[in-house]
Amino acid sequence: MNRIYLDRIAAAPLLPEALEEMLPYLRASYANPQSLHRDGQIVLEAVDAARESIARLIGAEAPDVVFTASGSEANNLAIKGLALASRMKGTHLVVSAVEHPSVLNAARALEKLGFTTTVVPVDGTGRVDPAAVAAALTPKTTLVSVMLANSEVGTIEPVAEIAALCRARGVLVHTDAVAAAGSVPVDVAALGADALSLAAAPFYGPKGAAALWLRKGTRVLPLVDGGVQEGGRRAGTENTAAIVGFGRAAEIARERLSARAARESALRDRLIDGVLGTYGHIVLTGPRAPRLPYQASFCVEFVEGEALLLSLDMKGIAVSSGSACSSKSLKASHVLLAMGLDHALAQGSLVFSLLEGTTAEEIDAVIAAFGPIIDRLRKMSPTYTAFLKEKRA
Amino acid sequence: MNRIYLDRIAAAPLLPEALEEMLPYLRASYANPQSLHRDGQIVLEAVDAARESIARLIGAEAPDVVFTASGSEANNLAIKGLALASRMKGTHLVVSAVEHPSVLNAARALEKLGFTTTVVPVDGTGRVDPAAVAAALTPKTTLVSVMLANSEVGTIEPVAEIAALCRARGVLVHTDAVAAAGSVPVDVAALGADALSLAAAPFYGPKGAAALWLRKGTRVLPLVDGGVQEGGRRAGTENTAAIVGFGRAAEIARERLSARAARESALRDRLIDGVLGTYGHIVLTGPRAPRLPYQASFCVEFVEGEALLLSLDMKGIAVSSGSACSSKSLKASHVLLAMGLDHALAQGSLVFSLLEGTTAEEIDAVIAAFGPIIDRLRKMSPTYTAFLKEKRA
Repeated sequence: MNRIYLDRIAAAPLLPEALEEMLPYLRASYANPQSLHRDGQIVLEAVDAARESIARLIGAEAPDVVFTASGSEANNLAIKGLALASRMKGTHLVVSAVEHPSVLNAARALEKLGFTTTVVPVDGTGRVDPAAVAAALTPKTTLVSVMLANSEVGTIEPVAEIAALCRARGVLVHTDAVAAAGSVPVDVAALGADALSLAAAPFYGPKGAAALWLRKGTRVLPLVDGGVQEGGRRAGTENTAAIVGFGRAAEIARERLSARAARESALRDRLIDGVLGTYGHIVLTGPRAPRLPYQASFCVEFVEGEALLLSLDMKGIAVSSGSACSSKSLKASHVLLAMGLDHALAQGSLVFSLLEGTTAEEIDAVIAAFGPIIDRLRKMSPTYTAFLKEKRA
Repeated sequence: MNRIYLDRIAAAPLLPEALEEMLPYLRASYANPQSLHRDGQIVLEAVDAARESIARLIGAEAPDVVFTASGSEANNLAIKGLALASRMKGTHLVVSAVEHPSVLNAARALEKLGFTTTVVPVDGTGRVDPAAVAAALTPKTTLVSVMLANSEVGTIEPVAEIAALCRARGVLVHTDAVAAAGSVPVDVAALGADALSLAAAPFYGPKGAAALWLRKGTRVLPLVDGGVQEGGRRAGTENTAAIVGFGRAAEIARERLSARAARESALRDRLIDGVLGTYGHIVLTGPRAPRLPYQASFCVEFVEGEALLLSLDMKGIAVSSGSACSSKSLKASHVLLAMGLDHALAQGSLVFSLLEGTTAEEIDAVIAAFGPIIDRLRKMSPTYTAFLKEKRA
């Protein structure tokens, strides 16, 4: 049985072109790019070239790109690093309620060191209101973090607007662009943010490769202190193969960005229309548009997302019931609760995220497989039985 | 020209067996090990198996192993994470003067948050005196960090002795075993430490793979907060290919440990005897024994290490002039200065670190190449000219 993989938000396959580029650095070119001998200098050139490619993808300059090992690390470096570097100026942070756990929990960790955080609410589509961010700012606020796109509900946030109002108040702005970069156009100048996180894996680069872009001159305290790597902003031997693969994936993402987005958003809409048009008591989470091109997410009434996920898995379809990072915690998603969904409905969450190679046939197969699974699970559901009884009464 | 690579302390080649094990996770098995579907669960099994292999290498249990992306990250997680978790108890740390920059600079970073650090001196061989550690402890001390082996001078530190005296005083002990693990026997129970850092690369595993072992029940504040990975101690999507390669390299290191050490230490001694027996005004840095089996380091009088390194590079020989992490900072090594070497002599530092595949012929070629280089550089050296003049007078 051919499996259908629609869980790009958890992990995407590595582009063969990126792997090809990585292999020499997993074989003969193993030297340390910090070494002064020729073996090291050859590797350094490759690291520098990759840094250029990644900068180009986001309209930035190479020296402002700091490599990290994950989007979570980039987010932590931004939140903790910027907040701690500005601690003499103030100790108040503002984040949105739908941020990734790596942003929310980094802010919570800072509370142990005397910081306070205001969590700004979102509307029913997961959108942050820039006015709510403005209202949350205090004279002690040094940093605002609002993501560019939410992988769980597909919402694109008004980061440029938020950045403009924060910069006018002298407040730093970080945006988590892990779900967005490489899939929607990202330009740091147009956004006006001071820091931006991105990762290679969402656009078919390797795991273990991510970066934090920092506006020139922005002070950050490192998470990892030590050697001179990354301009003293992140110590540790460079993971050269991963960096080189990241660079190649960034080049390809830039070339194929519009073509991929057009193709993916058509299939995404086919999935949304198919599911909503065929089955009852299912709601789309997040907005119809603007929306991440590769993402379609639903809440299915009367059933649990985990049961849906496992049933689809048995039919050969891999999806997510929410954030990969909290998928095992069995709690309702903080994103859906922040959007005002009731707890029971939020439990029935399911996220489909499409790959470059996803086909219309696969989408149709998923839509077709969905019906019998929903029926079967609802038949076992006490809340569905109660609903039917009430309806008949 | 075949190059001779003797810079394992900066980077070692990846074992073909480890790469073989990694490739499936760079190709078909790309799913996220946190995903509940079958694709994810298959990857999780591989991550768990690798964690077992790494635990076995150091006599530990798998759940106590926390994956990180580098030895520097493991050291930072230990220093910052343990110190911050114990901050209500005390805010004083003790480290040795020859620690890796990732330990020393992590301790310095904590000083910005109100911690104080005592740096314990070493003797002329780079050895830390356990009595000096005992003398440095105060009622406010919560953490001591002394490395297991120093890659720059080859010294093996008396960590078991230090751990015993610290544990008797209720003080946590971390040891940086990045240079030692996989190359000399490491057993966490015998050491008696509470935390131990190791990395894959020094024993031919991939870059981007390292770990912090933490004694069961030891509280640590994460550097990277976020998802549920690594038991909440280090968030971020697992770099599965790197982890799997780390596991395979650990298995092979365990199998070949004594054979490798016997072979390497014989070649190391051939190099030491050859250099010291053939050329004058060269001193071995670090002790003759006990010493890291793969490491031989010297200070060459009247010349600079960087000039030596570049001259050897032109002859096809890759070596290091000290720590890879500070190789570009052009400062004399903090390790050599702590050992009491004068500044001029410390500038002439050169580190040869051997690979599993290094041959006696290569060692002999290095010894032979060394003489003309030293002669040429000394002829250009004003300090050598002054020395000769003084000698004649």
